Amino acid sequence: MAEKVIVIGGTAAGLSAASKAKRVRPELEITVFEKSGYISYGACGLPYFVGGMIAEPDDLVSLTVDQMTHKRGVPTFIHHEVTRIDREKKQVTVKNLETGDISIHPYDKLVIATGARPIVPDLPGADARDVYCLRTVEDGIRLKAVVQAQGRKRAAIIGGGFIGLEVAEEMAQSGVEVHLYEVMPRLLPFLEESFSQAVLDTLEKNGVRVHLGCPVEAIETAEGRVAGVRAADGAVPVDFVLLSVGVLPASDLARDAGLQLGVKGAIVVDDEMRTSDPAIFACGDCVQMKNRITGAAVHVPLGTTANKQGRIAGDNLAGGPETFKGVLGSMVTKCFDLYIAATGLSLRQAQEAGYDAAASIVTKGDRASYYPGSRDNTICLILDKKTGRLLGAQAIGSETVAGRVNVFVAAITAGMTVAEINELDLVYAPPVAPVYDPILIAASQAVKKVDR
Amino acid sequence: MAEKVIVIGGTAAGLSAASKAKRVRPELEITVFEKSGYISYGACGLPYFVGGMIAEPDDLVSLTVDQMTHKRGVPTFIHHEVTRIDREKKQVTVKNLETGDISIHPYDKLVIATGARPIVPDLPGADARDVYCLRTVEDGIRLKAVVQAQGRKRAAIIGGGFIGLEVAEEMAQSGVEVHLYEVMPRLLPFLEESFSQAVLDTLEKNGVRVHLGCPVEAIETAEGRVAGVRAADGAVPVDFVLLSVGVLPASDLARDAGLQLGVKGAIVVDDEMRTSDPAIFACGDCVQMKNRITGAAVHVPLGTTANKQGRIAGDNLAGGPETFKGVLGSMVTKCFDLYIAATGLSLRQAQEAGYDAAASIVTKGDRASYYPGSRDNTICLILDKKTGRLLGAQAIGSETVAGRVNVFVAAITAGMTVAEINELDLVYAPPVAPVYDPILIAASQAVKKVDR
Repeated sequence: MAEKVIVIGGTAAGLSAASKAKRVRPELEITVFEKSGYISYGACGLPYFVGGMIAEPDDLVSLTVDQMTHKRGVPTFIHHEVTRIDREKKQVTVKNLETGDISIHPYDKLVIATGARPIVPDLPGADARDVYCLRTVEDGIRLKAVVQAQGRKRAAIIGGGFIGLEVAEEMAQSGVEVHLYEVMPRLLPFLEESFSQAVLDTLEKNGVRVHLGCPVEAIETAEGRVAGVRAADGAVPVDFVLLSVGVLPASDLARDAGLQLGVKGAIVVDDEMRTSDPAIFACGDCVQMKNRITGAAVHVPLGTTANKQGRIAGDNLAGGPETFKGVLGSMVTKCFDLYIAATGLSLRQAQEAGYDAAASIVTKGDRASYYPGSRDNTICLILDKKTGRLLGAQAIGSETVAGRVNVFVAAITAGMTVAEINELDLVYAPPVAPVYDPILIAASQAVKKVDR
Repeated sequence: MAEKVIVIGGTAAGLSAASKAKRVRPELEITVFEKSGYISYGACGLPYFVGGMIAEPDDLVSLTVDQMTHKRGVPTFIHHEVTRIDREKKQVTVKNLETGDISIHPYDKLVIATGARPIVPDLPGADARDVYCLRTVEDGIRLKAVVQAQGRKRAAIIGGGFIGLEVAEEMAQSGVEVHLYEVMPRLLPFLEESFSQAVLDTLEKNGVRVHLGCPVEAIETAEGRVAGVRAADGAVPVDFVLLSVGVLPASDLARDAGLQLGVKGAIVVDDEMRTSDPAIFACGDCVQMKNRITGAAVHVPLGTTANKQGRIAGDNLAGGPETFKGVLGSMVTKCFDLYIAATGLSLRQAQEAGYDAAASIVTKGDRASYYPGSRDNTICLILDKKTGRLLGAQAIGSETVAGRVNVFVAAITAGMTVAEINELDLVYAPPVAPVYDPILIAASQAVKKVDR
């Protein structure tokens, strides 16, 4: 009899696992259950859907239920919530959210890819209408409706992480008066301090009112609707609120099934994405991973990681072995015309991990100085003073910071020293780079911080 | 008495050497002699100066004679040609090209940074007026005058290398009817064949008439002026001609002094940039270098290398030791809206070097598919089938190919396999990259070519 595989969750990790396993062993009977009404959507594109740059929800979707079910041969069900995992009987309980029907499905192997859920802070008024999160396509549709509605609108965004910043941009460009609240005294505090300042300046230049070091005390309501926000610095009338204070692993099912949990309640998996139950794999935003530099357990929920881990889980449940090597926490985002990218450890993280670390910052144009259109890249490298090894890199400036930080990703992964990076034979032409690329300038400055 | 250093050549390599040595040991008495009327100019910017995007010759210059002489403390002389090196007496003969005066200058250490010179093919008419090369600022001023002159103009470019292609673009955009002649059956033949075709298509789409596999037989003249070009495919009337069939090391001085020469007559140096005479260093386009992958002796004249080698020569003549690690032959250029970047070995070079090599090609958008403005990157990876090690990478498409090829530069330098590249934790956000970056797609396809 064919082996039965059940996958809980139909976005990046779950569908990568299902598709990969089916490719490797077509005889597997794989079924996917997804709680929401959408599968395979690019959650990272939601801010741009809200802002209107992406027109339709379906634009965010790369695979339909029909394609998964009939083309890839993986029956896939939306609006189906797995409510219980019975590890002894090796079966899951599934609730059809449209009909209320309950059904039981046996498995030989199970994949948990339940993702993460937005943190809803314990605030008066947080349960009012007009208080939004942005995690699912349905969230996006609701938020877009209010952002793109006619008339003067004022919004508060609570939480200045990536989602908060990206939505602030999109709302401001859609004509919304935006108040961005951040508890910390600066934005994106893992960044070098002057970079946080540059992000702040960019937001303010573009009309976003930023409230730093400013906990929100209450969402004020009138007749169940949002009326304003009261914070440490006073009250502001707003029409709606976005909560973007972060996410936590959606690991309730795994916890209830007695699987081992780790950092922030994320599901503990080995390098092959196997949980503490060898018949159960887990992958994506719901699992704990290890930092590739320090080996420390972390929870860094990102789409790139979810896709990679899903593929590896699928490979291993169908055969394997493939291993996931860990994360550097690489990120990039844009805030109006300012791009921000980072990878590896911040100076503080490096010091906390026990390194005698230093940071070195340089600013350099991204083209030959004489070629029109050059824009600055400011690069901060974090290095181990003892060995000269690169531990982290952060950059702000033009769009080209993304490609440059990716070079540092490769360098960190390979264990390169800043002196070795300084010797890279990088490409050069006046329209694309200066003869000494900002990467080399950054590395040559960082070399001076290495112990002699 | 202070040690005397003479530097022959005042562009990238020579000035890097002089500046670095002076910084390390300020007591050195360093003098620079430059044959032309300009020092420290960005030769790679000359096509864009000719095309008008860069207005003035001085825009290409980053350091003036005055700055070198008075700010950096390195007396620098233009229009001064070193005509002879006397190694026994440790002195050079210098001719002032403006006055004709000859002078003798003793040295303790000498740096030869004489660069490369354009090959002038042995063609009837090659000595006519209106036949141009593009190597020095003076060359650029002459060529710009004719390109930007009023009236209908037709030009032939003989040689379809980087300079030929870049000037073809700039001339065409300046309204010149351009005929580009290339002896080889395709453009940039070290590129994957379909990439050569894409370059050809881009040129033709933009009105450049490309004559492939077509040796020029004669430059036709009338009264000493260019009248046309006669080639294998017939005769075409043109008003002027650019010769861009390549360069050779300008090593006559070194040869006459009895220094060891290598590939193409380039000066042989060790990793510390020392010639066969320990008192004489050489760097930049006039020296032989080694390929970083194969260790083979090559001559790859590039501004990036010249700058690095100059700095290392300067370091070593003042103290040291610093070593030059070799080149990958990394390059990038733009041809209208098509960007072309490459590093490492081509498939053919890899096979000739004895590798059981394979090439793998993929095309992928450079942003999330749903984000507006995505443009394709087509990437060709060359790998060693036995070990999976990456040997070379080539890419065409949007401007972002530069950053992506630089990631492969780091990967090749670190000796990474394509499987290791496939595991890189690269940055991701919809406006900047797809969730599976083209780098990862290219690597995952290449993995399939590795021997199992």
